[in-house]
Amino acid sequence: MQYHDNGFRPGDPDLKPASHQDPGDPLDVLIVGAGPAGLTLAAYLAGFPGIRTAIVERKSGPMEKGQADGVSCRSMEMFQTFGFVESVKREAYWVNEATFWKPDPDNPAAIVRNGRVQDVEDGLSEMPHVILNQARVHDMYLNVMRNSPTRLEPLYDRQLVDLKRDASGVTVTLDHNGQSEVMRAKYVVGCDGARSNVRRAIGRTLEGDSAHQAWGVMDVLCNTDFPDVRFKSLIQSANEGTVLVIPREGGYLVRLYVEMDKLSPDERVSQRDLTAEDLIAAANRILAPYSIDVAEVAWWSVYEIGQRLTDCFDDRAEGQDPRVFIAGDACHTHSPKAGQGMNVSMGDAFNLGWKLVSVLLGRSDETLLRSYSDERQAVAQTLIDFDEEWARIMSAAPETQEGDSAPRFQQYFIEHGRYTAGVSVRYNPSALTAGDGKQHLATGFPIGMRFHSAPVVRLADGKPLHLGHVQKTDSRWVIFAFTAKGKPEEQLSQLHSLCSELDPVLARITPNGADLDAVIDLRAVLQCHHHNLDITQMPDRLFPPKGRLALRDYEKVFCPDPAGEDLFDLRGIDRERGCLVLVRPDQYVAGLFELTDTESLGRMLNGVFKAI
Amino acid sequence: MQYHDNGFRPGDPDLKPASHQDPGDPLDVLIVGAGPAGLTLAAYLAGFPGIRTAIVERKSGPMEKGQADGVSCRSMEMFQTFGFVESVKREAYWVNEATFWKPDPDNPAAIVRNGRVQDVEDGLSEMPHVILNQARVHDMYLNVMRNSPTRLEPLYDRQLVDLKRDASGVTVTLDHNGQSEVMRAKYVVGCDGARSNVRRAIGRTLEGDSAHQAWGVMDVLCNTDFPDVRFKSLIQSANEGTVLVIPREGGYLVRLYVEMDKLSPDERVSQRDLTAEDLIAAANRILAPYSIDVAEVAWWSVYEIGQRLTDCFDDRAEGQDPRVFIAGDACHTHSPKAGQGMNVSMGDAFNLGWKLVSVLLGRSDETLLRSYSDERQAVAQTLIDFDEEWARIMSAAPETQEGDSAPRFQQYFIEHGRYTAGVSVRYNPSALTAGDGKQHLATGFPIGMRFHSAPVVRLADGKPLHLGHVQKTDSRWVIFAFTAKGKPEEQLSQLHSLCSELDPVLARITPNGADLDAVIDLRAVLQCHHHNLDITQMPDRLFPPKGRLALRDYEKVFCPDPAGEDLFDLRGIDRERGCLVLVRPDQYVAGLFELTDTESLGRMLNGVFKAI
Ligand SMILES: Cc1cc2nc3c(=O)[nH]c(=O)nc-3n(C[C@H](O)[C@H](O)[C@H](O)COP(=O)(O)OP(=O)(O)OC[C@H]3O[C@@H](n4cnc5c(N)ncnc54)[C@H](O)[C@@H]3O)c2cc1C
Ligand SMILES: Cc1cc2nc3c(=O)[nH]c(=O)nc-3n(C[C@H](O)[C@H](O)[C@H](O)COP(=O)(O)OP(=O)(O)OC[C@H]3O[C@@H](n4cnc5c(N)ncnc54)[C@H](O)[C@@H]3O)c2cc1C
Repeated sequence: MQYHDNGFRPGDPDLKPASHQDPGDPLDVLIVGAGPAGLTLAAYLAGFPGIRTAIVERKSGPMEKGQADGVSCRSMEMFQTFGFVESVKREAYWVNEATFWKPDPDNPAAIVRNGRVQDVEDGLSEMPHVILNQARVHDMYLNVMRNSPTRLEPLYDRQLVDLKRDASGVTVTLDHNGQSEVMRAKYVVGCDGARSNVRRAIGRTLEGDSAHQAWGVMDVLCNTDFPDVRFKSLIQSANEGTVLVIPREGGYLVRLYVEMDKLSPDERVSQRDLTAEDLIAAANRILAPYSIDVAEVAWWSVYEIGQRLTDCFDDRAEGQDPRVFIAGDACHTHSPKAGQGMNVSMGDAFNLGWKLVSVLLGRSDETLLRSYSDERQAVAQTLIDFDEEWARIMSAAPETQEGDSAPRFQQYFIEHGRYTAGVSVRYNPSALTAGDGKQHLATGFPIGMRFHSAPVVRLADGKPLHLGHVQKTDSRWVIFAFTAKGKPEEQLSQLHSLCSELDPVLARITPNGADLDAVIDLRAVLQCHHHNLDITQMPDRLFPPKGRLALRDYEKVFCPDPAGEDLFDLRGIDRERGCLVLVRPDQYVAGLFELTDTESLGRMLNGVFKAI
Repeated sequence: MQYHDNGFRPGDPDLKPASHQDPGDPLDVLIVGAGPAGLTLAAYLAGFPGIRTAIVERKSGPMEKGQADGVSCRSMEMFQTFGFVESVKREAYWVNEATFWKPDPDNPAAIVRNGRVQDVEDGLSEMPHVILNQARVHDMYLNVMRNSPTRLEPLYDRQLVDLKRDASGVTVTLDHNGQSEVMRAKYVVGCDGARSNVRRAIGRTLEGDSAHQAWGVMDVLCNTDFPDVRFKSLIQSANEGTVLVIPREGGYLVRLYVEMDKLSPDERVSQRDLTAEDLIAAANRILAPYSIDVAEVAWWSVYEIGQRLTDCFDDRAEGQDPRVFIAGDACHTHSPKAGQGMNVSMGDAFNLGWKLVSVLLGRSDETLLRSYSDERQAVAQTLIDFDEEWARIMSAAPETQEGDSAPRFQQYFIEHGRYTAGVSVRYNPSALTAGDGKQHLATGFPIGMRFHSAPVVRLADGKPLHLGHVQKTDSRWVIFAFTAKGKPEEQLSQLHSLCSELDPVLARITPNGADLDAVIDLRAVLQCHHHNLDITQMPDRLFPPKGRLALRDYEKVFCPDPAGEDLFDLRGIDRERGCLVLVRPDQYVAGLFELTDTESLGRMLNGVFKAI
């Protein structure tokens, strides 16, 4: 964490100095819905004093329990940029292993453990896969908002009824406890869930099928002789259906997803009048010979499996850039058991956030906003496909097992670990994502995928840390310069040349008088040991004077961690040539460039940023 | 973190349900002074709804800056038990390496780097040595207090003027903004710093010498060409004295300790009229040929080196157990540069806290309270000796260097790393600390020293974690049972036998109707892989039903971490015999016992706990 940069400030460094926004000023962004998507976006935008944001929510206050609970490794990486991943790590259940149960071949009425796998493959992410109530994730975002310069708070008890776009903005009509309220904003983002009114208002529809299969979900405090209740467990009984056990935060709570009955084609799950007792009874039938004795049901729900997707996530029209967007469940719904709903929704907002900032701060042209739907709709399609297959496998009758062979869902589980970890998302080539012509420069940083962090040591203070963790929710792009082979002084001189070439490239897009790293944050990684060079030898761009007091920033230069594997090896970085890795504000690799090819890098930046 | 144990509770799990204390009830403990010692004790006691605590402070509100900043590994381990170590880790500067500078032999007017060392030797603690403003440490404690069931807040603007002990308690007179106020409490703890009024009131004195050497300390935001300003650095100039550089949290702030002039025998540092400019000028003379350009002085002070110690830390008298205690700087003062002041003060309070709880909850006899002064006075004496030597070395003229040989302070620094890390404290044999007759059972858990945590995997959910982190500030003792060699089922049966033998031993000191682990927390560590046994096979004491809903606690049993070094090897635990490690609530090893020798273990417990 960096703070005291504009002078010593006592107290909690997370509590930012409040900025004074004029309540009379028109809104830049109106967010509809304070679920995971809406709050991710609100927490992102709240950090910018120059942007006026409001978030409205139909409910009367923050959520307290229920709904999603799976937090993928990728979402944890994103939480790091918001500054609350340590809290989540401490509070959450960690998914370390998954176990699989199937009917005992000798006594099919009883289940037996059939396999165990590590949940996340080694090295996939520096973050764990965890389980934490969606309500607590909301709380973390609300805290970020409360501490932000704009002190943003949701406006509760406000339901969007309608919206109208005109030449200069969008007018929104809200129902505020029976009273009609009107708000105007430049942009509106509908994060209002599966029954999105914003989606309806812009004439988009969720398309897709239901599997006509009822499932129950319940968060319970219980006693049981089932030994794996603190492992994520998939249990397939011979004739009673499937249970998925998700242990929860706090050491006692557990979530059970319970397969209920098949629905007839024209039947809805709501017509079944299922009760929590029905869910518990079904779970007990599936778990036999084990049983669960439920002491308290904290939350429960029943639902139908279904995957639905909207074909476009904004209101674009011929010759008109978008002004209204939808994100999260408003665009796509999944079956809950793959644990994707909350994660993909937050990913949508994280993609949109920096783009809105870039346009609203006048750094980029409005056309940038088109890339949101282009990128996220394709991601959602892939996930829907994955989810359909997953749901089918979960509901399939257990196979007749031959010896110890793992059931189909266990194999599928392993193969698709990267999907569920959220790190397989890859954006297609566009103005924001280079083609793969230079992929050979660093094979471990696939272009279009999230920047895969690696351990380094900071030159100026010898601190071991994760390179990827330098990114925060500040809308800046990062250039990581990996030096080429050579004596330490040679590597140093590579960086001096690089910086003098970068100077005009970055000056073109950085406001006059702003810090050198205000828009693009250059970082360097040397091949040598951190004892071989001093920070004071670095060019200004890597040791920049910043802020009101022109204090030098000591945190731009890194070296391999001598205690671990060298990151040049770990990420397949070309040691002979070195390279430049351009990373977007949402941590996706935009492109790789030769260490000396600031021209191509500049061209890419000019495709995104307007000249000042 | 374990929560939801008495039913699902929405919101922040750190915010405990409030208990209702009657404000008319007499106080159990009155703490005087809200510095590190007072707040450690207050945060500890605040967790017990059955104990009425108040803390008074002369100042008008929480501290904002200045004073101590070094947090030793041992203090970090203690912060873990309070639940805020992750916040400190995130916010603080990490001391990774120290560098040493001396006069250039070829040009003694200029300093040159003479050496670098790793700050904390590998494996000494799982926690880093960090630097964080004392004010922020206070904030963390205040937060724990605010979230505790008793919602304890300091009473500011109250200065203790006098106190009187009588047969049933202590009467305290306070000055509250000029008004006299009287409070009564069973126990009073003076955490009121070096000029303690409580110490004076009980007739104790700080004895010791001043070195007649003035030092300056300043927290500054500055620019400098000195390359090691983000490393802890010891700089000895030829003729201008010594500077100690302590980089600070946030990446910009730095603390400099600057040697100023020798004082004449009858002179006080306050008579010198030193200014911040004098300190800056002296620092620049010492740092030549480098210089610092100070943009902002956040805090500064001048002081004399001196080590003083009180011979007894309570008001005991012939035939009378103590009722008034002193802790922290009230008992001992150090020279600040070894970074011990805050750490030792917190250590005092952590030692006293659980003893007060044990007596106030009626579990132990009042004589237990004598052990506080006995243990901590001896610790302070050792530290004072160390500190005197350290101060002497720091102020000694630089040696005439032969070639590359490290200066004396560098050698001393390395040798004494364990002291400064705070992990060398060893309590002498007493009712609370067994003799070393059984030390061979686990050579890596020295009796009388803090339990040195090691990595394990939890049986019930495969989570890798640190065994020592199971201890929280709940006043419970822990028995770690390490099984002996054998097939998994044999190890299991060892635990079953152990538990049936422990039942009568622990029943004797555990209140009727309380959870099995309410007073003594039994944990087991198996030698086998965590896939070889199930938690449901464990005896009740290792899988206990707890709380209002009698939910099973899944977090009592551990196995070696297959991904790292086996802790039986790491801590020299006798694999053939296994062993029992009894650990006090302050994380110190009380004794080692044969796995089957519950009789000796019971004897030790009976020396501490009254039979119910
Ligand atoms: C009952 C339920 C159970 C679920 N269970 C699971 C589960 O077990 N596992 C799982 O992975 N996922 C589950 N999900 C899905 C998961 O919660 C979503 O994928 C995730 O919350 C999507 O985030 P979002 O922000 O897009 O939408 P949501 O979380 O749905 O948030 C939308 C928000 O907008 C508000 N809103 C809606 N309309 C308006 C309006 N017109 N005006 C103002 N505000 C409005 C809503 O009140 C809500 O707060 C469940 C969802 C629901 C509704
Ligand atoms: C000016 C100063 C500079 C220091 N600089 C350093 C440093 O650079 N490095 C370092 O390691 N250590 C430094 N220390 C020492 C370090 O702060 C102490 O070792 C540590 O704070 C001791 O903690 P404590 O709780 O025992 O006492 P303190 O932190 O001194 O706390 C005592 C508290 O009691 C209050 N109090 C005093 N008398 C009364 C009364 N009669 N009634 C009510 N309240 C009272 C005080 O206001 C204070 O808040 C410094 C101390 C001081 C005073």
